[in-house]
Amino acid sequence: MYSVNVRDHFMIAHSFKGAVFGPAQRLHGATYVVDLELRRPELDADGIVVDIGLATDVLRTVLGELNFRNLDEESAFSGRNTTTEFMARAVFDRVVRRIHAGELGLHAHGLSHLRVTLHESHVAWAAYEGALPAAAT
Amino acid sequence: MYSVNVRDHFMIAHSFKGAVFGPAQRLHGATYVVDLELRRPELDADGIVVDIGLATDVLRTVLGELNFRNLDEESAFSGRNTTTEFMARAVFDRVVRRIHAGELGLHAHGLSHLRVTLHESHVAWAAYEGALPAAAT
Amino acid sequence: MYSVNVRDHFMIAHSFKGAVFGPAQRLHGATYVVDLELRRPELDADGIVVDIGLATDVLRTVLGELNFRNLDEESAFSGRNTTTEFMARAVFDRVVRRIHAGELGLHAHGLSHLRVTLHESHVAWAAYEGALPAAAT
Amino acid sequence: MYSVNVRDHFMIAHSFKGAVFGPAQRLHGATYVVDLELRRPELDADGIVVDIGLATDVLRTVLGELNFRNLDEESAFSGRNTTTEFMARAVFDRVVRRIHAGELGLHAHGLSHLRVTLHESHVAWAAYEGALPAAAT
Amino acid sequence: MYSVNVRDHFMIAHSFKGAVFGPAQRLHGATYVVDLELRRPELDADGIVVDIGLATDVLRTVLGELNFRNLDEESAFSGRNTTTEFMARAVFDRVVRRIHAGELGLHAHGLSHLRVTLHESHVAWAAYEGALPAAAT
Amino acid sequence: MYSVNVRDHFMIAHSFKGAVFGPAQRLHGATYVVDLELRRPELDADGIVVDIGLATDVLRTVLGELNFRNLDEESAFSGRNTTTEFMARAVFDRVVRRIHAGELGLHAHGLSHLRVTLHESHVAWAAYEGALPAAAT
Repeated sequence: MYSVNVRDHFMIAHSFKGAVFGPAQRLHGATYVVDLELRRPELDADGIVVDIGLATDVLRTVLGELNFRNLDEESAFSGRNTTTEFMARAVFDRVVRRIHAGELGLHAHGLSHLRVTLHESHVAWAAYEGALPAAAT
Repeated sequence: MYSVNVRDHFMIAHSFKGAVFGPAQRLHGATYVVDLELRRPELDADGIVVDIGLATDVLRTVLGELNFRNLDEESAFSGRNTTTEFMARAVFDRVVRRIHAGELGLHAHGLSHLRVTLHESHVAWAAYEGALPAAAT
Repeated sequence: MYSVNVRDHFMIAHSFKGAVFGPAQRLHGATYVVDLELRRPELDADGIVVDIGLATDVLRTVLGELNFRNLDEESAFSGRNTTTEFMARAVFDRVVRRIHAGELGLHAHGLSHLRVTLHESHVAWAAYEGALPAAAT
Repeated sequence: MYSVNVRDHFMIAHSFKGAVFGPAQRLHGATYVVDLELRRPELDADGIVVDIGLATDVLRTVLGELNFRNLDEESAFSGRNTTTEFMARAVFDRVVRRIHAGELGLHAHGLSHLRVTLHESHVAWAAYEGALPAAAT
Repeated sequence: MYSVNVRDHFMIAHSFKGAVFGPAQRLHGATYVVDLELRRPELDADGIVVDIGLATDVLRTVLGELNFRNLDEESAFSGRNTTTEFMARAVFDRVVRRIHAGELGLHAHGLSHLRVTLHESHVAWAAYEGALPAAAT
Repeated sequence: MYSVNVRDHFMIAHSFKGAVFGPAQRLHGATYVVDLELRRPELDADGIVVDIGLATDVLRTVLGELNFRNLDEESAFSGRNTTTEFMARAVFDRVVRRIHAGELGLHAHGLSHLRVTLHESHVAWAAYEGALPAAAT
């Protein structure tokens, strides 16, 4: 299995609901340094997993929709705790939608799996990984 | 699959037995920077993999039992080479025992896999990963 | 010159005022991974720059006063932009006050300089460094 | 599953063919920091995955054949784009050949999987992983 | 003294002349991960060292002039060994010219020192630092 | 001022004497990842600060004298606490002696300052820096 990974980051405010979160129930924030790993079993004719320029652009676009925001006020996350692991899945889903929309180009046709990791500090990170879902028809 | 990772470290002395270890047969030591990765297929109702505060505490407790010690004198490791990969498994097993004892709380019920990585320098690390064993009854 | 450095982190929400900040004028947040470097020309009789346990405690205490907060609502920063460089100075000043209050113990008497670095992402950090001010009498 | 990882690096020049590569079609170069991860289900009698000294030597030897070269002029890669993911596979294959030749020693008999990761910058890496192929007879 | 640092990278081919360089006399290449640190004694009225957006843009522009090139064919470096330390100075000088041309904006007026660090691998880096030269009149 | 940095590591056992060290009074150990930074005001005719190959060799030799040892039994450190900051100075002094002995070659004649940093974990490091002392005559 081949992998290619690109990295970018975004910075948000949010708060959590539930006693399990302790002081993180207060409004605070985080920098998330994001790794987007794209996997496929074989390289394409150009010898690549994906057009790394397009992958970088897609990740920047997805994170740009979240960057410099208060997630508590984003309707997409209404009623949810925007934990690091939840946000890893949110980024995963948004990347998938853009792949299905063709934003990674023809080179993306062989992709089989994605992994999104959000590093929230030097001592903690969370991730979501899974098979690339088939596009709805 | 979702993952959450917490990091801590411990510092030990030890020596190895066997020609394969060369000069590491002498008494020496290591800093191990430890990543504990906890995995589960779905988030719980709070939107988390595990209570990250409890996970941090459990890792600190497990490493605290090993920190600032000469592993050659620990009866738990008698007759064994406490290599980095062996210690990754030892930390894995001790974390599992504490999960079974309930120290990660109710949020840990959905955990399915663990991975423990010990970074011993900027050029070497070792890991042990596996399914979370069922608790003995 | 000898140095010792300890690292910890804190997570905050804030917003900035001024066109120079662009989208960072919105409420957002950051993880700051903090390096506190303590310097002195000579080691003390124990062979140390400072009691590293106390240094770790002082840094944790200082960051604990800021962690999981919305800096826009902290009276200490009223009317100021809590930029990374500004916060580096704020941490510096708070560490100095605790050194003057004796929280680093007798070992701190030889300290001459401090440097506080706040890493806000994998591509940006800011710092403040200077001589340790004399304690007010 | 147990893993051991060793790290080294090599520095090369190359160019790519194909519009997808944009300005990287020009002759340029890269530092690749390489992680070689070796995996096996159980430790051997010495408590190790592999002789880490031999693993380090094998990786250095493999990378030494590539270091300080213009990959465009290497006959082994003639007509191929030496992308990061392609080179991860090339290093994987060369390590496998040396394992089959016995260069990792008897300790390598239990190895089941390898992963080779090439870090090309602080924001991009690629990898190839797979089962250790059986030696040709 | 306050500092702000931004990071980016560029990838080049080159060769060296002189027996001291050994196999690096062959055409090879490197990824340089670049830290640009900007220093000033006091913050400005906005509470910043520099407009970090402009600093990021200036660094990207300077590195863009070097990225994906064979330095052996750049007339600016004719007859010079483009070592890591030499390139750190080259980036320093090019950033200074853009500061003098006003590309960092009014916020840059208080800058007093710069440091440029080029990381060429996980085990080697080089830097050039100095006072910001006065603009020619 | 120009700098070049090379990195290597060593692994030791030791214990400390003095109540300030708490549990570190027990026999334990550490991995020290070592940065050796060499500085000079101007480059030499080859465009370098120092022969980086020789610098790497000198650092490896110096660390090789300490690697895989129990520092409590090294006569050179008898009666001293081999703290991280103390060991940074010890490495500094040993590198200086080898520079004076000519092991960095003619390229080292312009060196003016050294800095030795020992990283003991992901959250702590210590350093010693100073002017290169004149060779005894």
